[in-house]
Order: sequence, then C-alpha cells, then structure tokens
Amino acid sequence: MRDAFHDDLDAINQTLVDMSALVSDAMAHATTALLTANLELAEEVIAEDDRVDTIQHDLDNKTLEVMARQQPVASDLRNLVTSLRMSADFERMGDFAHHIARIARMRYPSSAVPAELALTIQSMGNVAVALNNKVTGLLTSRDTEVALQVERDDDEMDKLHRKLFEVLLDDNWAHGIETAIDMTLLGRYYERFADHAVSVSRRVYFLVTGEYAEKQS
Amino acid sequence: MRDAFHDDLDAINQTLVDMSALVSDAMAHATTALLTANLELAEEVIAEDDRVDTIQHDLDNKTLEVMARQQPVASDLRNLVTSLRMSADFERMGDFAHHIARIARMRYPSSAVPAELALTIQSMGNVAVALNNKVTGLLTSRDTEVALQVERDDDEMDKLHRKLFEVLLDDNWAHGIETAIDMTLLGRYYERFADHAVSVSRRVYFLVTGEYAEKQS
Repeated sequence: MRDAFHDDLDAINQTLVDMSALVSDAMAHATTALLTANLELAEEVIAEDDRVDTIQHDLDNKTLEVMARQQPVASDLRNLVTSLRMSADFERMGDFAHHIARIARMRYPSSAVPAELALTIQSMGNVAVALNNKVTGLLTSRDTEVALQVERDDDEMDKLHRKLFEVLLDDNWAHGIETAIDMTLLGRYYERFADHAVSVSRRVYFLVTGEYAEKQS
Repeated sequence: MRDAFHDDLDAINQTLVDMSALVSDAMAHATTALLTANLELAEEVIAEDDRVDTIQHDLDNKTLEVMARQQPVASDLRNLVTSLRMSADFERMGDFAHHIARIARMRYPSSAVPAELALTIQSMGNVAVALNNKVTGLLTSRDTEVALQVERDDDEMDKLHRKLFEVLLDDNWAHGIETAIDMTLLGRYYERFADHAVSVSRRVYFLVTGEYAEKQS
C-alpha cells in the first residue's frame, strides 16, 4: 500500500512540475506577444489558460481522492495539502499570463508598450520566467539553497517595478493616461506572478525544513 | 468521537465567520480612511492585517491537526479542505484592505481620491462590504439562494469598475498620471476583494449542492 501511495505522490508532483513549466511558457509567450504585437501568440496564451485551469481541477480532485483513500498523517498529509496550495499558485500565475496576453490583444495592431519601456517589460518577463524555471526544478530537487535564491531573485522584480513607475511619473511621459493604466496593470501582473513563484518556493522550503525561510536580501 | 469532531468543525467554521467579519470591517475602514484622509484609521487597518494573517496561520494548523487526528473522508474531508481555501481567500481580502489603507497613508494629508471619483470609490467600498457581509451570513446559513445573489451583486462591482475607467480616460481628466495610477490600483483592489468574496460563496454552494454554480446575470 505504501508503494501505491508514493506512486500517487510522485504523480501529483509530476503534474505540478508540468503546470509550472506550462505557466513559464505562457508567461514567456505573453511577454513576446505584448512586445511584438503578435495577435496569434496572444490568442494562444489566452486559449492555453483553460488548459491550466483544467489540470488544476483534475489535480485537486486526484489529491482529495488520495487523501480520502490513504488517510495520510504528519508529513504525507502536509505534502498533499501543500500540493493543493501550489496548484492554486500555478493556476493564478496562468491567470496573470492570460491578463498580459489580453492587453496585447486589446491594443493590437499597436504594441501596448511604448519603446522607452520595452526593455523594462522584457526584463520583467525574463525575471518572471527565470524565477519560475528555478521553481520548476525545485519541485523535484527540493534544494533549499535554490529556494533561498528564488527569494533573492525576486528583489530584481521589485527593482524593475520601481523603475517602471519612475518612467510613468517622469515629467516627460508623453503617452497619456490609457497607456499609463496599461503599464500600471502590467507591472502588477508581472510582480504578482513572481510573488506566487516565491510563495511556491517557500512552501518547498517549509516542507523540507519544517521552518519558514527568513527573508533574504 | 464524532461529537468531538463536529465540535472541531463548528469551531473552524466560527473562526471563518470571525475572519470574514474582520475583513469586512477592514474594508469599510480602509475606504473611510481613503476618502477622508484619516491617517489614524489607515494605520489601524494596516496594523490589523497582521491579526488576520495570524488567525489564518493558526486556523490552518488547527485544520491540519483535525485532518490528521480524525481521518475524515468524503464530505467531511471536502469541508476541511474547503476551510483551508476559504481562510486563504479571507487572508487575501485582508491584504486588499491593507493595500487601500496604504494608499490613503501615502497621500496623506491629501485624499488620494479626486472629488469626481469619491462617489464611485465609496460605492465600490459599499458593494465590497455588503457582498462580504452576505458571505459572512452564508458561512452559517449555507443558503444557496444567497450564494447566487452574491454572484449577481458582483456585477455591480464590475459596473463601478468600468465607470472608474471611463472617468480616468475622459479628455477632461485633470489629475495627472500619479492619481491615475492610484485609481487604477484602487479599482483593482476593490474588484479583487469582491472576486474573493464570490469565490467563498461558490465554495459554499459547492459544499451544499456538490455542483458548481452557473454564472448568474
């Protein structure tokens, strides 16, 4: 029975790895769609989000079914409950990629992002994807050093977010209110995506060590 | 044993009711602090958010402990897992009240909200609080009719959110980029608070009926 149970745990973890890889891809594609005004790619990201939602739904049912059947205690129970939380994080991260793709679609055939912010947004996209790629590896390696790195890497996102606001608030801003609204929302979507990646890495850290990670700086 | 278990379930549910009432209050106070530039009230809301986080943390530990001890199956297990999700919703709703209070504090002694948007923001605050007060009642009554009402009431929030953007995008907008950024973020915080209230009411609906509520309009 214990072997069947651990097969179940492995299968659940593999699905989390797949979800994480999917939302990294979605985020990379959403950023490209946004910066190159690529409507087709934006539509793909938007359609793909339903797939993430379906995977989450099926995974949560599977996890509940394993809980009911195997009656785990202690660390096994904590592991399964944490899986439910991680799948919710990934589902939400998929939403943010979807929101970004919708802004790309809404402004097509223009690019939503003015030239002077293209590099900042591209960097936010890169940091978001790199951060979450580390999280994907972490789900298998459970390497607490990497979990702490993810925390530190998130500081880069905060810096980029502040830079975005500096440009918006500069007297030379010449793109009006609508673009400022888009940029405000985009900044938040990238930051929140990264927050959820950090949240997953904290959950891994806690599962491994039984303690909460100290804030890294 | 079953009686002790149901006492545990009741205690968990009562804590959710308390959390829900706390975040309704936080949201009401945050809105007042914002519109009246009341620094003291803003600080209170900001400090109070730690209390919500602590309650969530303790409640989740208690819920896990009950799961491990009682080994529930079927509807009891689903109930407990749903409690974990609801506590996460309320924790997040507390965050939004906290974010709103921080904007109030950041713009003090001015009010962050220009006069022409005060009524819209006040209405968003009212709808958010009224919606969540229904949710608080729902946690005890489990009345599916009220759950469906909550879905419908959320449409009012969407209308107010659109109205906010109309004012921001009007050619007569005279308050510059910084205020437009504040209003964009505020709009999102109110809307997301309401989304989480709807999400809790959907979870109640599902627990009672075993089915997902159809989108109401």
